[in-house]
Amino acid sequence: MDNFTFYSPTLFEFGRGTEEKVGMLTFLTGATKVMIVYGRKYAKTSGLIDRIANSLRNIGVDYVELGGVSPNPTDTLVREGIKIARAKKIDGLIAIGGGSVIDTAKAIAAGVPYKGDFWDFFIGKAQVEEALPVGVILTIPGAGSEGSGNCVITREEDKVKLSLRTDSILRPRFAIMNPEMTFTITAYNTAVGIVDMMSHILERYFTTTTRVEMTDRLAEGLLMGLMAEAPRVLSDPTDYQARANIEWAGTMAHNGLVGCGRREDWTSHAMEHEISAAYPQVPHGAGLAVVFPAWLAFMAHHKPSKVAQLGRRIFNVDEKDDRIAAIETVASLRAFFSAVLRMPLTFKDLGIENPDIDSLVAKLHANKGETIGGYYKLTPEDTKQIYQLMLAEEQKTPS
Amino acid sequence: MDNFTFYSPTLFEFGRGTEEKVGMLTFLTGATKVMIVYGRKYAKTSGLIDRIANSLRNIGVDYVELGGVSPNPTDTLVREGIKIARAKKIDGLIAIGGGSVIDTAKAIAAGVPYKGDFWDFFIGKAQVEEALPVGVILTIPGAGSEGSGNCVITREEDKVKLSLRTDSILRPRFAIMNPEMTFTITAYNTAVGIVDMMSHILERYFTTTTRVEMTDRLAEGLLMGLMAEAPRVLSDPTDYQARANIEWAGTMAHNGLVGCGRREDWTSHAMEHEISAAYPQVPHGAGLAVVFPAWLAFMAHHKPSKVAQLGRRIFNVDEKDDRIAAIETVASLRAFFSAVLRMPLTFKDLGIENPDIDSLVAKLHANKGETIGGYYKLTPEDTKQIYQLMLAEEQKTPS
Repeated sequence: MDNFTFYSPTLFEFGRGTEEKVGMLTFLTGATKVMIVYGRKYAKTSGLIDRIANSLRNIGVDYVELGGVSPNPTDTLVREGIKIARAKKIDGLIAIGGGSVIDTAKAIAAGVPYKGDFWDFFIGKAQVEEALPVGVILTIPGAGSEGSGNCVITREEDKVKLSLRTDSILRPRFAIMNPEMTFTITAYNTAVGIVDMMSHILERYFTTTTRVEMTDRLAEGLLMGLMAEAPRVLSDPTDYQARANIEWAGTMAHNGLVGCGRREDWTSHAMEHEISAAYPQVPHGAGLAVVFPAWLAFMAHHKPSKVAQLGRRIFNVDEKDDRIAAIETVASLRAFFSAVLRMPLTFKDLGIENPDIDSLVAKLHANKGETIGGYYKLTPEDTKQIYQLMLAEEQKTPS
Repeated sequence: MDNFTFYSPTLFEFGRGTEEKVGMLTFLTGATKVMIVYGRKYAKTSGLIDRIANSLRNIGVDYVELGGVSPNPTDTLVREGIKIARAKKIDGLIAIGGGSVIDTAKAIAAGVPYKGDFWDFFIGKAQVEEALPVGVILTIPGAGSEGSGNCVITREEDKVKLSLRTDSILRPRFAIMNPEMTFTITAYNTAVGIVDMMSHILERYFTTTTRVEMTDRLAEGLLMGLMAEAPRVLSDPTDYQARANIEWAGTMAHNGLVGCGRREDWTSHAMEHEISAAYPQVPHGAGLAVVFPAWLAFMAHHKPSKVAQLGRRIFNVDEKDDRIAAIETVASLRAFFSAVLRMPLTFKDLGIENPDIDSLVAKLHANKGETIGGYYKLTPEDTKQIYQLMLAEEQKTPS
């Protein structure tokens, strides 16, 4: 267990009807005129924005709207938002949506008080020292941005996707989470969100830091909880309790709790980012459903110990040999992704018939260095092998 | 899963050497002259206070000292602290110690800016609306006060022990946790702390709120982690990693995380408070080691479902019948408390030969109402039966 700082000052207001508190919570941030950022039609058509606007008006907080945030949000909209925010003298933001909307709001919040170009923060040219307060009304769980200090923005001109990580300055001041707002998310997108959550946990689970019993157990608990609730919400999208358990797990998966005191891995995310950069039709979570089992299968042969521990603890794998236990673990995770979540497991399932693996590998290592990974250092030969594992058709049916 | 608010704005600085950050962290609270509150000789003799004082001086924060906090801290010292703080124009507090010291600092922090008597907060006559910032250097884990907004103070004249609960205003601004500072805690006191942590988790685990899969899993994970690390720290008190895992679990056991979205129980704490009020030689955690298994044994017969779930998930109980599974769970917990932690299991083990059970029951219900408990409503007859279970000698050896 390594030294760590854990600071999560976001106020989470969770449950039915909690969106009515948005006026009071915004008022408490000190903001007097906010920008409401949203993307999804849901925010407008459901009447949610009107209710939010009412709550703000009632407490004397003025607002402007900025809609149209798309998945993989861009610098263009962030720049537009910064310009409007400055012109209208905005002193706070409210994001209504999921990761893309929240990340856009965070980038605007950091950009408004900064004299240079906000992209400086993403390329390491400047540090965020000041930011407008951001409040969140979460309607799409998965990305975990409601409880993190990070945001990811894509530069439109060259599709460069970069993340900005802060300890706390970009953590939302409050996050309102009403699971009823997630009832209309399709089964596919719900599954994609669950894979994203599980990946956020697993990227932290696989570590070279030893003696991290407590955070291992928290991680395993969240994974078991997600696997128990997933079939419930997929069979009944309006199962409030399943939606609630999953939504809260998504926050804990990514607010730093599971990473306390341990080096993290994040190779699977990096490998997936190359896939969705090259094949933009691939949703992040669906890509992860293909990448993570392949990465795990490689580890089952090269460093099976922790893979075996995972299987013994969350899949009831009852096998003493670490390598065999690890292989059984990979099969169990694949079975869950495929049979329960109906997620893709191969490039072909993602609609990619002939992936250019050499190009994926080249870009991955150009972006991330000669070797990548925390749990196990992967060379380009290794990552090539992992990408190749995603070709195999027979892997769809775990033995 | 019920609606909930979760707000834990404490900054946790965890690991070796982190006490050196106290100056900077105090400076960031805005305090310019703090009161250093401590109790245990350790703070003085280890040179810790000198190091803290240096760190404060280096950043230009002035300080005064208030030592002598004892277990079950009293209103007398709080009043003295408030008087000194006002006279010396103190604008912040630093608590060096465990629950008693932190709770004293919190009560002073609330009392200083309040015009009336600070006890008003404890008897519900007033609400804390303002408080000085409190920072913590934790040297005795268990009580969990470093991550909570609560404090417990005993009125010296009549030994009335009351707790003050706030959502966030009394949560420490920062908590510095260096596991090395816990190396000198005796095996007995370490075990007492572990029982306290496990009880904080179990009081939240036993709930009538259904569909709380995610927090159930977190609770079970923390319990399994504590049971794995306990024998390690007891066989080697300077096992840094075991100390670290246990200390962090103690914070998560009581910062509200495990209680999110569920009604809690707290009967065992209430029943134990009566024991340690009547028999002041009984440490809180040791009393809980006697009370909790007895309470569980009663539930094994009257409401076994969740007891059985606990056993199946954390003790590998492999029994389909809930009642039998629950009985096996109680036996497993008793075996852990007794064989691993060397904790008492009966009144006799606590040094109480002839407990006045009728008086305990009368006081319990006078304080808490005709029936008590969240998971199961207990009448005076029920609580009498539970206290009687703590007499039974044969319960020391689980079948």
